[in-house]
Parts: sequence; structure tokens; C-alpha cells
Amino acid sequence: MIDPLERWRALGLPDKPDYAGLLTFAGMPYTQDPAELAGVDVAVVGAPTDDLVSDRPGTRFGPRAIRAASCPPGPHLEAKVDAFAKLRVVDFGDAAVLPADPVRTHEQIESTVSQVVEAGAIPVVLGGDHSITEPNVRAAAARHGPVGLVHFDTHTDTGTEVFGVEHSHGTPMYRLVRDGHVDPARYVQIGLRGYWPGEAEFSWQRDRGITSFFMHDVRDLGIREVVERTVATVGDGPVFLSVDVDVLDPSIAPGTGTPEPGGMTSADLLWACRELSRRCELVGIDVVEVLPTAVGSADVTALVADRVVREALTGIALRRREADGRT
Amino acid sequence: MIDPLERWRALGLPDKPDYAGLLTFAGMPYTQDPAELAGVDVAVVGAPTDDLVSDRPGTRFGPRAIRAASCPPGPHLEAKVDAFAKLRVVDFGDAAVLPADPVRTHEQIESTVSQVVEAGAIPVVLGGDHSITEPNVRAAAARHGPVGLVHFDTHTDTGTEVFGVEHSHGTPMYRLVRDGHVDPARYVQIGLRGYWPGEAEFSWQRDRGITSFFMHDVRDLGIREVVERTVATVGDGPVFLSVDVDVLDPSIAPGTGTPEPGGMTSADLLWACRELSRRCELVGIDVVEVLPTAVGSADVTALVADRVVREALTGIALRRREADGRT
Amino acid sequence: MIDPLERWRALGLPDKPDYAGLLTFAGMPYTQDPAELAGVDVAVVGAPTDDLVSDRPGTRFGPRAIRAASCPPGPHLEAKVDAFAKLRVVDFGDAAVLPADPVRTHEQIESTVSQVVEAGAIPVVLGGDHSITEPNVRAAAARHGPVGLVHFDTHTDTGTEVFGVEHSHGTPMYRLVRDGHVDPARYVQIGLRGYWPGEAEFSWQRDRGITSFFMHDVRDLGIREVVERTVATVGDGPVFLSVDVDVLDPSIAPGTGTPEPGGMTSADLLWACRELSRRCELVGIDVVEVLPTAVGSADVTALVADRVVREALTGIALRRREADGRT
Amino acid sequence: MIDPLERWRALGLPDKPDYAGLLTFAGMPYTQDPAELAGVDVAVVGAPTDDLVSDRPGTRFGPRAIRAASCPPGPHLEAKVDAFAKLRVVDFGDAAVLPADPVRTHEQIESTVSQVVEAGAIPVVLGGDHSITEPNVRAAAARHGPVGLVHFDTHTDTGTEVFGVEHSHGTPMYRLVRDGHVDPARYVQIGLRGYWPGEAEFSWQRDRGITSFFMHDVRDLGIREVVERTVATVGDGPVFLSVDVDVLDPSIAPGTGTPEPGGMTSADLLWACRELSRRCELVGIDVVEVLPTAVGSADVTALVADRVVREALTGIALRRREADGRT
Amino acid sequence: MIDPLERWRALGLPDKPDYAGLLTFAGMPYTQDPAELAGVDVAVVGAPTDDLVSDRPGTRFGPRAIRAASCPPGPHLEAKVDAFAKLRVVDFGDAAVLPADPVRTHEQIESTVSQVVEAGAIPVVLGGDHSITEPNVRAAAARHGPVGLVHFDTHTDTGTEVFGVEHSHGTPMYRLVRDGHVDPARYVQIGLRGYWPGEAEFSWQRDRGITSFFMHDVRDLGIREVVERTVATVGDGPVFLSVDVDVLDPSIAPGTGTPEPGGMTSADLLWACRELSRRCELVGIDVVEVLPTAVGSADVTALVADRVVREALTGIALRRREADGRT
Amino acid sequence: MIDPLERWRALGLPDKPDYAGLLTFAGMPYTQDPAELAGVDVAVVGAPTDDLVSDRPGTRFGPRAIRAASCPPGPHLEAKVDAFAKLRVVDFGDAAVLPADPVRTHEQIESTVSQVVEAGAIPVVLGGDHSITEPNVRAAAARHGPVGLVHFDTHTDTGTEVFGVEHSHGTPMYRLVRDGHVDPARYVQIGLRGYWPGEAEFSWQRDRGITSFFMHDVRDLGIREVVERTVATVGDGPVFLSVDVDVLDPSIAPGTGTPEPGGMTSADLLWACRELSRRCELVGIDVVEVLPTAVGSADVTALVADRVVREALTGIALRRREADGRT
Repeated sequence: MIDPLERWRALGLPDKPDYAGLLTFAGMPYTQDPAELAGVDVAVVGAPTDDLVSDRPGTRFGPRAIRAASCPPGPHLEAKVDAFAKLRVVDFGDAAVLPADPVRTHEQIESTVSQVVEAGAIPVVLGGDHSITEPNVRAAAARHGPVGLVHFDTHTDTGTEVFGVEHSHGTPMYRLVRDGHVDPARYVQIGLRGYWPGEAEFSWQRDRGITSFFMHDVRDLGIREVVERTVATVGDGPVFLSVDVDVLDPSIAPGTGTPEPGGMTSADLLWACRELSRRCELVGIDVVEVLPTAVGSADVTALVADRVVREALTGIALRRREADGRT
Repeated sequence: MIDPLERWRALGLPDKPDYAGLLTFAGMPYTQDPAELAGVDVAVVGAPTDDLVSDRPGTRFGPRAIRAASCPPGPHLEAKVDAFAKLRVVDFGDAAVLPADPVRTHEQIESTVSQVVEAGAIPVVLGGDHSITEPNVRAAAARHGPVGLVHFDTHTDTGTEVFGVEHSHGTPMYRLVRDGHVDPARYVQIGLRGYWPGEAEFSWQRDRGITSFFMHDVRDLGIREVVERTVATVGDGPVFLSVDVDVLDPSIAPGTGTPEPGGMTSADLLWACRELSRRCELVGIDVVEVLPTAVGSADVTALVADRVVREALTGIALRRREADGRT
Repeated sequence: MIDPLERWRALGLPDKPDYAGLLTFAGMPYTQDPAELAGVDVAVVGAPTDDLVSDRPGTRFGPRAIRAASCPPGPHLEAKVDAFAKLRVVDFGDAAVLPADPVRTHEQIESTVSQVVEAGAIPVVLGGDHSITEPNVRAAAARHGPVGLVHFDTHTDTGTEVFGVEHSHGTPMYRLVRDGHVDPARYVQIGLRGYWPGEAEFSWQRDRGITSFFMHDVRDLGIREVVERTVATVGDGPVFLSVDVDVLDPSIAPGTGTPEPGGMTSADLLWACRELSRRCELVGIDVVEVLPTAVGSADVTALVADRVVREALTGIALRRREADGRT
Repeated sequence: MIDPLERWRALGLPDKPDYAGLLTFAGMPYTQDPAELAGVDVAVVGAPTDDLVSDRPGTRFGPRAIRAASCPPGPHLEAKVDAFAKLRVVDFGDAAVLPADPVRTHEQIESTVSQVVEAGAIPVVLGGDHSITEPNVRAAAARHGPVGLVHFDTHTDTGTEVFGVEHSHGTPMYRLVRDGHVDPARYVQIGLRGYWPGEAEFSWQRDRGITSFFMHDVRDLGIREVVERTVATVGDGPVFLSVDVDVLDPSIAPGTGTPEPGGMTSADLLWACRELSRRCELVGIDVVEVLPTAVGSADVTALVADRVVREALTGIALRRREADGRT
Repeated sequence: MIDPLERWRALGLPDKPDYAGLLTFAGMPYTQDPAELAGVDVAVVGAPTDDLVSDRPGTRFGPRAIRAASCPPGPHLEAKVDAFAKLRVVDFGDAAVLPADPVRTHEQIESTVSQVVEAGAIPVVLGGDHSITEPNVRAAAARHGPVGLVHFDTHTDTGTEVFGVEHSHGTPMYRLVRDGHVDPARYVQIGLRGYWPGEAEFSWQRDRGITSFFMHDVRDLGIREVVERTVATVGDGPVFLSVDVDVLDPSIAPGTGTPEPGGMTSADLLWACRELSRRCELVGIDVVEVLPTAVGSADVTALVADRVVREALTGIALRRREADGRT
Repeated sequence: MIDPLERWRALGLPDKPDYAGLLTFAGMPYTQDPAELAGVDVAVVGAPTDDLVSDRPGTRFGPRAIRAASCPPGPHLEAKVDAFAKLRVVDFGDAAVLPADPVRTHEQIESTVSQVVEAGAIPVVLGGDHSITEPNVRAAAARHGPVGLVHFDTHTDTGTEVFGVEHSHGTPMYRLVRDGHVDPARYVQIGLRGYWPGEAEFSWQRDRGITSFFMHDVRDLGIREVVERTVATVGDGPVFLSVDVDVLDPSIAPGTGTPEPGGMTSADLLWACRELSRRCELVGIDVVEVLPTAVGSADVTALVADRVVREALTGIALRRREADGRT
């Protein structure tokens, strides 16, 4: 394991400038060695792949951009907890993706995420296009059994095919439910809008009891009520949190492949991710569809993607603190 | 008429990728032949001109960018109607604009829009700068008589001149009211803010009974109340809907020539356009002042302009469905 | 003094296009001569420096960008006052900054702002990084005594050091309070969020009675209540207004060095600046951390920074009008 | 067939502004109907696909960008011939690409190009990534037998696999030679440089008699000598011309996925394409790896790609004129 | 007159950072007062207008961008002369352009340039689109009689109309020759290429004895021979130098409205401008068609436009020094 | 030491996609531990700092961008050697830079480079602004004694001060010669042009016997002659190679702080770096003033900077091979 802060710590500094030093998530220590995951609470994994997109590609640059936009540890000014002080977080590197070979790429992602899961840590996977949720959840479900899913997105991603292709960033949720890795009764979609999919997909969803909060629901109910209902729906078992940044309005997350106007505010999404992570038993997280176009913190989409992860980690840290308090 | 989907339909697919095939609005069939407008409900016309702007030019690239950002048909996830299934929509191409000759350009725009109007279809004109509303409305009023006008904008565009020029993107509404094409009692402005125009113009507006909702009104009353009052004001007759994308906050529509902070959210604008189109008798639509700087769906301003049109078409489709229900 | 409008006035026009003529704030007359400040109400000063930033640099281009984005005078459409008609405003040029020499640069900024203050005008300083608030406030306090401070920002900027450096854009507020130029009992922070600073700094703040409104407070209380409490806290004495544009959400102000998702809306910030300027006795203003990347009005961050200044000037004009009314 | 110039011709104008009217290559008539290819000399086909790239994706936007950058007909100022007056050119639209399905996409490209070839016209295929040369040449060879190949590129694209993938933008030339569609004795590569491929691939090439001009050869010999030797090598039979824009220096063609410094000048490449097209019997052309990032003529890479096609068409027109002269 | 260096000179510094202080060309003193032109050798005038372009607009931002890109005085490292030490140069501000009113705009440009000419100074006009050469040369010819013209450009700009418009950026040279302001026998065009204009225009040019060096001539003859022949052609009388930056290759000057691949290198253009200015009797200069997209020195097109002016000024300074040496 | 290729090697692949895996130079193994430098031939060090620039900042993002643009190992297609096969290269990480503290930052750079030098490896330092050459050369000279210097640059960087500041990116070469770390008789500057510095600095240089090749010399003599003379001048002793990317034309390296038109071609610079590295005894290399604005290989300046390093490594590898051949 290599600690990027080492040279700065030698100067008596607790931190390093974001733009300097080894590029890891939040400046966390880096390892590629599964043996070093022992005792780790959270391991960040990159899945830089976009072979299965149906519109603008480029999310293969997402993991690197999110790491470059990620800010150093520190106390969450509202939640009053420093997730990195409470949790042991490492950057476990990228899965061994292969350009133009999505099948083997997904195998590699699943294998790498499985190493995290097997070590007892929570995987945080940085995408990459949304198709990666299939190997991510598969790895989690292999250990925890069928998981609940909280899914922030413009689109349901429950198509059986997109442009005639079954293996696509528009079909992972269909495949995960179909294959029994996600429990549809504990599957909640938040932020749906736009013009896809159609009645066939929604009918399929209804038949399985999948819960959907459309953007007009979010506006009408308010994010707090949506989160309450989501918590009630997913209940106590293991939950995977999947955030497609296109759930945000394009003004907030322009760097994504299929943006759709009328989306969530970052205040709502960030709070919801923290609160859900505090109240649910998260067994895995992914943040996907970041298509960066700018350098470092200038990339606002990678920036908000980083903060989505931060809020989730903060929620997990709060949950641990509350658990500590109960014991 | 040429259908861009043809080659994909031969593969059994109902749609094509946005980035492929002939560039038309939403992949709709293309014709330049007025004879083919028979039976058409809505015809999209491009007006790629920006000779009359007073600040940053470039909206001549707007129509092409909106077409590139336009997404394929599908059911509106909130309104549960697919406008393109309910309505027959075609792309009627661009008017024969001439660079550096705004007079003849406007003649050509009016002539092209008139062909749509004469065919009994609703024209949707993609700008171009806001001066095009003059020929657009003139064409509509030639058939329908003086029209009501619902006008989303930062600026009133009722100047008598801008920098000493009478033919400008800051004067079309003055000219249309002056010339009797717009009924001022049925003219509603929504979203005004900033520092232009001055008391003289507002006094002129008040004298004619023009209704203005400033941005602070939108925030204080809420968009639902503003829409209610607008519907009440424009009443039952023919109405033209003109949307200057600078009514949106610059965070949402940065690609425009005279952005002004403190504007509308896309959620409000999109809902309002749908609702107004459902409840008013629309005889024409334009969406103007899109100044694109990016390719395809990466251009967030063209994207939201496309969705403005979509919501209006959705509203028209709902209105038709409701009318069907009544018969 | 040179008036950029001169050649247009000779044509009978009250204004000039934003992109033409001498580049001054809002097209105001330009002078570098302190003697010409007599009778001036407000003098704009540029402080193009960014030597003390800890992340992305480039705010040295801020003053020029804000001037390029600034729009001509005109009546505020909500407040119904034209600040430039009510107040005599000049552009006093840039301080004599020296690249890579922040100490002498700050001396020059303080000296230039002092000339404004000594002339009895209100300085409006365009940054530059936030470290410039130190010379700005020092110049104001030299005349007015310890000032109240209304400080919009993501960060408190009350660190004792940043990466081991005491002279930084993260420390000016600490230094100003420490040195007695800001009265901590009359110091209000609005918009705090993110992960910096830590408990040590907040403890120091609490000990001195500094008031902080975090972003969650702004959302929970509403901006009107926050402004009420701020007015109550700063009371009647001289107040400095310091606006770091990173208080805004990155969707609104992407052009800044350390953006943080979840920030203020422009509607809230602009209204608050106007209202505070109307109700408090402002003795100086700065707007900082604008890192422009686009030309003219295409730079949305410089644009909103300009409007921050406009709203403040509008508030000052309203205050003068109210004072006139009382006499 | 639809002629985009129609509305402008009605005004007595021979042309239309580049940014207006139906988006076709050089404003040429558009058809999707193979029956309308009768009598056509050259048909432009788009192949908007990039599923097989190994680095930066985005060339799926290439065909549209090249069309947007293409300028209207006119006499070549050096060659004194207007290719569009001499040749009948149409835009035959895009092949029915399917995102994330490169196998069926290639089938569609081959099928569409075959329609052109069968009609006796020369196909000009706009990519897309370089893998499309496989279906392009296959279609040509199906009619003409094994073809000669003039191949401008940084890379040989004769890998057997790239990152373990056989179907890649780095392998088409290997596959075409292997499968007998390209005659290696009549295959010339021009512009090679950088660090790929290795000795194994070059050894394979030498064994088959493939001719390579590296960039240092181009600089040492001069482009005229390189072209002479190329003409001598490919001889009299049918020749396919394949131009990867990354053969140009990245200063000239920055919009490409795998740029390599030290490349050709546009003067050399443009002249060579014209001269080779004049002297060889071209049976097909492709221009690939344009990854656009800007709008219209602002995209310099799409611009130079358009001019590559223009020069080739000019060369073909010269060849026809010379042939006319001989008869 | 205001000297932007004043505050820095007070610190003992001969210069100021490019990004700070009043924005003038090369930091030169600024005046709008014709009376202050007495004794001035060169006066820079901005002509920020682009109403007459036929493709991409935006050159109205050119003058400001060139000033922002202009570097401080200093000795030319090859020519060993500091033009600003040898010549008295001022920035005379922008002409009073009016958006959307090219007729009055041109009157204002001519009037402003005339003031410079009348004062005995050489005007250097920063465009703006190329149509401004008409008022520029008219002003020069009014004093000096018909002038010689050295014209660097992709296009001849000798159309009688463009898209049916006579007043266009494609027609100024036709109009100037037609109206007797340019002596066609002393008119030299350098850098022509591409596909416009056609035989009619070239025939008109030949009839009048206009000399054209196409880009292939420049490559074949070498820039030194082209300059020699140009000097011989324009002879001893007054000469105007007009540089359209699109004469450069788009790799060097991407920020222009109608770029054309295969253009001049900056080394050739810069040397030629210096040499021609040294050997000819320049009575005016313009640099046009700069369409900036970036801030400050990041805009490479504005940068090279500034250096075009610098080389011309250097040449004038050398000419003066040589003249001094002869006396 | 961590090898980024590990997971791909486990798949039997010799390489990884550039955009995936731990971000190191060319995918080389990473270590921060000086003990692991034993046996290493070349160690890459990042120096992400730009506190001492006089114009546009941002080179602090340079090292990360160069790593992101760096391509995997492979045989140089002209030189027929794979530097990474011949040499053992590691990425030694970034020096512990401190924003806004250039003094301590330089100490850290010197210390980190010294560790490389002490280990007997050649340091390749990625800047960062040019001021870093001072600690870089100091570290080399501490071991090797006064070094020869081959310095590619637009500017001499031999000022005694810039804007009154002695510690600047315009002064390192003055300081290194003054302090005896560079032997002026063995110091060669290549590529000088523009307007800085003045006679005083050149006089100082001449007095010390420093050799300068201006850009006009490079054009007149040709790069081969310039390299011959340079080799002759620096002779046999230890030589440091310092490449400021602004020596290239801005068309090739637009991403730099003080670009100057009329610069070197990449073909010339790349060849010269290889040849000089082959023929001289290099003891250190730096590549500076890369100011990235784009992601990954889209940043053409970082790309060419990477290739500068590659050519130098290739030259070193050739030198080793030749030395091997002699033994």
C-alpha cells in the first residue's frame, strides 16, 4: 500500500494539494493487493469502460476524473463527522478493462469488486457507463444474496435491449432483476423523466413490484418524503446504491452521455445519498456515467460525483457512529 | 419526403441513434415540398439567422444544434402520451436565409412559415435570434387574425430601436403589436428581469394592456399561478408561443447571446410550456436565441430548447386527446 | 477621466455595445487619478492576483472578465431604480499587482483602495483570489474603524494557515479579526458547506462570537430569514460585503478555483446582496474568486459576479433614495 | 432525392450558407434510395461508429461534423476544376449503425457501401473509427477483386489483436490482407511514426511485400517522391484510398482519438490525395478517426477531413478531364 | 491620454503584467481625443463588427482579444529594434460601431480612421470582419490618393456580391478597386487557396492587372521571392497592408470564420509583414477576421494577430532607422 | 513499488489502456521510496507548481496531464529501439509542493530530485513552471559539478528579475550561471524569439560565453546544423536538457503560459531531443510550462511534452546500445 500523503506528512502537513501526488480517491492509500484489504471499511474501484453506451461515449475517463476532482478528508460541515477518520478507506485501483471487449471487461469488474466484497469491505465503484452495475451488484449479491437497490437515474435501465443489443447501458437493471440479484420488491428508482422507456418496460416493472419515483414525484412530495418511502421500501436487508449522474439536471452534471433537462438539484441528491447511507445497510455503491471534459476541479460533473460518494461515506460513518452509540 | 429511420426500420428497429442518419428534428421525416404538408399536424422550420443581434452572435447555428440535440419519440413519462404517435410531425427544413441581408431573410422566413400555416399545420420555428418572431407571427396572423402571445424571455423585446436600429432582436414585439399582428390584451410576458428596457417601454406596454410577469413574480406566485393567470389572459383565441431560452437561468442555458442571471428553472419552463400548449389554442411556436458551442447532446442549451418543443408538442397532443375524449 | 460612451453619445445614443469601446465596468468613466474621485459615490478597483490560491489558479483574469461581462446601466426591473443614475460610479482601474510577489501586491491593493476610501467613495474591488479581502478591509477599517463583515462563501477563510502558509486565500478572515479590522460580533458568514475547515477553526470562531449560516441553514430558514438575522447581527455601523462566487452552486459559477456542489442559487444571492446593501451601511464591497474561461458574456461566472455588484449598487441606490425620502 | 439548394435556387442563388439547409456533404443532393444512384459518380456514405477504439472515443460524431464543415462547390484554385461540376456527387446518408454492436454495424456499412459500388459509383465513406475500412474495402473488392491500398496513417493497423481483441480499429488492414481483399504488393502505408506496432507486425508486413513510408521517409524524400513511388507501387489496377486523420500532426488534426506528434502537414496530405486520385484508379475512399469537439467550421479536424475528400474528388475530376482529353 | 503603466512606473517598473491594468494595445497610452494624436506615429483603432460575414460570426470580439493578447514592448530579438521605442504609438480606441447597422458602422470606422490619417499617423485597424477594409482604405486614399494594396488572405474578397449581398466581407476589394481607392496595378494578393471565387472574379482581376500569389506559388517560390515580387509590384507609392488571419493555416489561426486548410506558416507571414513594412511606404494596416474563443494569451489566433501588428511596426521602425541613417 | 500493469498482465496482456489503471508515466512502476531506486536508470519526478509565473498560470496541472497523455512502451518506429526495454524507468511521484510557498516548494523539488541523482538514476522532471530548473539543476550539479545546459525555449530566462521579483520563472538560468551550477561555456539556448529579454541580458550572456540559437538561426541553419554545433559546444561532460514547451509554435503547444508565434516544429524538436540525448552525457531532463486544458490524449501540449521525454529516453537508450556495442 502506498500513501500519497507521505512526503507531505514528512513536512508536518496533514494533507496535500489536490493536484499533486499520486492520483487516488481523496488522496487515500493505494493498493492493488487483495491481501491488503483486510480491515478496510471501504474500497474504491474504478471501472473505466463505456463500450455499451447508446449515445455520447467518454465515461471511460470518468474514474480518473472523479479521483482528480475528489477533495481531501475533512469534517462534513453539516453532519459533523469526518468519514475518513471514522472509516478506513483505500483506493483499490481500476479493474482490468479491455477496450472493445465488454464481456471480458465485465468479468474483470466483477472479479475486482468481488475481491473487495470478500474482504468484507464496501465497494465504491466509479464508472464508466451504467452497464457496470450488473457486475457490481452481481459481486455484492454473490455474498449477500439478492439485494435491495436504490437507483437514482433519469432512465429505468430496465430495457430488454437497446437498438437491438441486450448487453447495454440501458439494460442492467432488467438483467439483475431477471437473474435474481436484485429483489424487485426492494428496488426503488428515483428521478425518472424524459421519454424512455415505454409502457412495456413499465408494465414489466409493475408486475414485479418495483417502486418508481418520477421527477414530478420528487418535486411534489419533496426529497424528504421520497427518502422516507424509499427507506421503508428497501427495509433492513442489504442495499446497493447506484447513482447515475444524469439524474441531476444538465446544468449541474453536463458531463454525461444522455443528459435530460428537468433533473434533481445537487442539494437534494447529496442529502438523499447521505441519509439513505445512514439509514440503510449499504453493501455497495456505484456512481456512473461521468463523462469528463475538463481538468481537475474544473470538471463540475466529476466534482459532484465525488461529493455523491462523500455524502454516502458520511452517511455510512454516521451509521457506524450511531451503532457505536447503541453499544 | 424522406424518412431517416428507413434503414433502421429495415432491421426491425423502431428508432435510430441520435448521432446517426439524416439530421432532422427528432428523426422525423423531412420534406421541402409544401405539397407534402397535407395532413401534417406540426412542421418544424429552421430560421438560422442572427444578423440582428446586439451582443454575442452565433444563433445561426441554433436550428442545426437543436436538431442534433433532439431525442427520438417516446412517451412523456409524466404526461403518458407520445406526441409523435398522436401528431403527425415533419421537418420542413430551413428557410432560405441570406447572411448579412436580414430583410430578405425575414421575407423568406415568413414565406416558409406561411406555407406551413396555409397547409393547416402548426409551425414550430427554431431560431435564430428573436427578431424572427416578427415573420413567424406575421405568417400566423395572416391566417388567424391578431394572435395572443405567450412570451417567455428575460427582455420584453418591445424597444422601438436598439442602438439606433429599428430592425433588431430587441424590437419584434413592439413591431408586432404596433402593426396589429399581436393583440396586446392577450399578450403575456413571463420571466422578465435585469436592466432593460426602461420606463418608456413599460409605459407603452401598460398603455396597451400588455401583461408582464417578472421573475420575482414567478418566484412569489409560483409557476402554477402564473400559468393560470396567463391562460385566463390569453383566453380562447389563437395563441403564439415564443420562448427565448435566455428566460432560463444561465446555468441552464449558457449558450445564448444575452444571458441574465436569476432566471427560470427548466422544471418550471418545461411544465409551463406543456400546460399552456394543452390549454391554449396554439397556432405557432418558436424557440429562439440558442447559441450552441458543443456537439450533439453535449450542448445543454440546444438540449433544453429541444425539450421546450417536446413539452409543447406533448401539450398539443394532450389537448387533442382531451378533444377526442369530448367527442 | 475618459468616458467610453463619448463616441456613441456623439451619435445620439445613450449607450454602447458591451463588446465595443474602452473596457471599463459597465461602461463607466475611467480614471487612474485620485484627484478625480472627488464627488464619486462608488469606485471600482481591479485586483488581478491569484498568487495565494491553494488549488486551481487563474483569478488574475477575473477583473477583466467581470468588466467584459458587465452590462450597461438601466433600471433594475424589480427595484425600479437605475443605480448608475442615482450614484456616480467610476472605474478606478487595477491596483499595480506584481506577479509572484503577493506581499507587494497586497500593499498596492491596499493603497489603491485607500485612495477610494479617502475620497469618500465606496470601493468595489473585483478579485482576484480571496486573500485580497485583507487589504480591502484594512483600507476600509483604517478610515471607519473595525467593520462588520457580511461574508458569502463556501469556506470560512479563517484558517491560521493553509498547507503551512499563513498568507493564503484561506486565511484573510482570521487575520482581519486577529488584527482588529473586523469586529467578530458583527461578522456573519453565509453559505458554508463542504469539508473545510475543522473544529479548531470553528471553535476559534465561536469564542469570538462570529455568526455562521451554513447552506443547510439557508435552505431550512430561507434566505429572507437569513438576511433578517444578518441585518440584526451587523447592526448600524460600517459593514464590508465580501462575496466569494464559490458560495454559488458550481452549476451557476463553474469558473472558480475551489467549487463545492450544493451551493446557493443566484436568485437568493442576488436578492440578498441587494437587500443587505439597502439596509446596511456598506463601506466596501469585494467580489472574488472569478476564474474566467470564456469570452465576454459567454463567461457565466463573470456574468453573475457582475450582477452581484449590480445588486449591491442597486441596494445602495435604494438606501440613498430612502434616505432622500426621509429628509 | 432532395436538393438542399432548392429554396436558395428559387432566389436565383447558386449556393446556400454552409450553416443553413439540410445537412449533406457539400450541400449535395440527398438520397437513401439505391435506385437513385444510377448515373452517380460519387456517393458519400457516413459510418458513425466508434465501438472498436482503444483510446478516446467519439468518432461516431465524425460524419455529421465533416458534413457540417464541408464547404460548397467551387473551382479548386490551384487545379482549376470544380469537382462537383465535373462529377455527379450525392450524399447517400449513413449506414444503419447500431451502438454497442460492431458486428452488425459492420454488416450494415458493408451493405450500404456495396449498394454504391453496385451502382457503379465511387463510395466516399466518412468515419467513424478505422475499423470501418474492413467493410468498406470488402465491398469494393467484392466487385473489383483484390484492391491496391494507399493508406495514410500514424499506425499500420495491421495488428492481429489490440488488448486481446481481434475486431479493433488497430487490426483492419491485417484482416483485409489476410482475407485477400487487399493485394499486399499493391499496399502502401504513408506517415507511420510513434511506438506501435512492433517487430512482429512489421515482419509480417515485410513477408507480404507491403510498402511503408515512415514520417522520416516523408521528410527525407519529400512528398513528391513518396507519391511517385506510391503510384509506381500500386500500378494500374483498382485502388482504395484510406486516410486516417491522425496521419496529420496533432496541431492540424487535434480532434482524433490517438494523436501522435510529428505528423504530416496539411499541404502535403492534401496535395498527395489529389495527385494520387488523379493518377490511380480509385474505387473507394474513406476518411476516418475524426473526433469532433466544435461546431461547424470551428472544428478544424472535420474541416481538414472535408478538404481531404475535396482534393480526392478534384483528382478524380482531373483524371476524368484528362481521359476526356485523350478521347 | 491615459497611460496604463502609470501605477507600475511609480514602483520603478518599466512594464505591467499583460493581464492587469487598462486594456490597451501593448499597454500603450489611450486617448479618444483626435487632438492628442499630434506627434503620434501609429494609432491603433478597433473596429469590432461582424455584421457582414457569410459564415461563422464573432469577430466583433476581435479587437478586445487582440489587445488582451498583445505583449509589452521590447526589442525584436531578430530585428534588434524596439518599435515602441522608435515610434510613438497610441491606442485610439474603438470606432462607434452599431450592431446590426453595417452602413453607419462603416461610416464611423471611416471617420475614426480618418482622424488618425489626418493627424499624420499610420492607422492600425483591428477587425472585425474583412468588410472594414473598405472604410479603412477609403480613409487612407482620401489623403494619399489611390493606394497600393498588399493583401494576405485565403480569398480574394473581390466578389461583386456574396449570397446576393453587395455589402459583404467578400466584396471590399472589388468595391475599393471599382471606386478608385486601390490601384489594381499595385494590388498584390498573397495566400489564395480553396474553392472561391470563380473564373468571373479572376477574369475581372486579370483585366485590371491585379497580381495574385496562390498558396502553391508561395510554396513553390518561397516567401522571400514572393515578397521581392510584391515589393517590385507595389513600388514606391503609398501602400495599405491588409491581413486576413485566415491566410494562416487553421492549425495556427483556428479562431476565424472561414478557415481553409493548407495555409501559410506564421514564420512566413510574420517575416513577410516585417519585410514589407520595412520596404514599402505603409499608410495603413488592418488585421481582420480574428474570432476569439479563449481568454488572454490562451487565444492563439488573437496572439498571432498581435504579432502580425508587431512585425509590421518593427518593419516601420526599421524603415525609420534606415531613413535616419541616410540623413 | 506498484506496477500498474499487474492486473492486465494477469490476463496475458503486455499493456493496459492509457486511460485505465494507476496514473503513472507511461504506465511505469510507481514508488515513493528512495530505496527502491537502486538499479533504476531513469526516474520521473513531477513538480506541480506555478507560483512564479508572470502571465497565465496553471502548469501545476502539468505533471498529471503529461502522465495522462503518455503512451505505453513500444519500439520507436524510426530509431528501432524500445527505451523502456533498454532502460529501467520508474515513476518516482511528485515532489511535496506547497501552494503559495515557492521557497519551500523548491527545496522539496531539489530534495526529491537529489534522491534520484544520488541513486545514480537520471531524473526526468515534469513541470511546473520553468523556475523548477533551478532546483533540478542544482541537484544534478551537486553530484556532477557544473553542468552543460541545452535549453530549448522562446525566452532566455536569464533575467535578474521579472516585475521586480528575483525568484521567477524568468530568472532560473541567470541564477544557475551566477551560482556556478551551469557552465556558461557549455550552455546553449535554442529557439529564442519574440521581444524579451533586452540588450542588458544578452550582453550579460555574451560576457559569459553563452551560445544562443534564435528561431531565425534554426530556420536558416536547419536543425541538424544547430544540433551539431550544440553537441560541439557542450562537449563531453555532464549535460542537463531543459525543454520549455513554448519553444514550439503555439499551434503545436497552445497549452502554455506565454506562447509566442513563430516557434519550432515538433518534428525538429523531437528529433533534436533524441539526437542530443544520444550524443551527450545527459544527467537530467526537465520538460516545463505545460498548462493543460483538456483530458488525456486530447491535450495536445501534454502529448507533445510526453513525446519530448520519449525521444530523450530513446536517445539515451541508443547511447547505451552504442556503448554496449563498443564494449
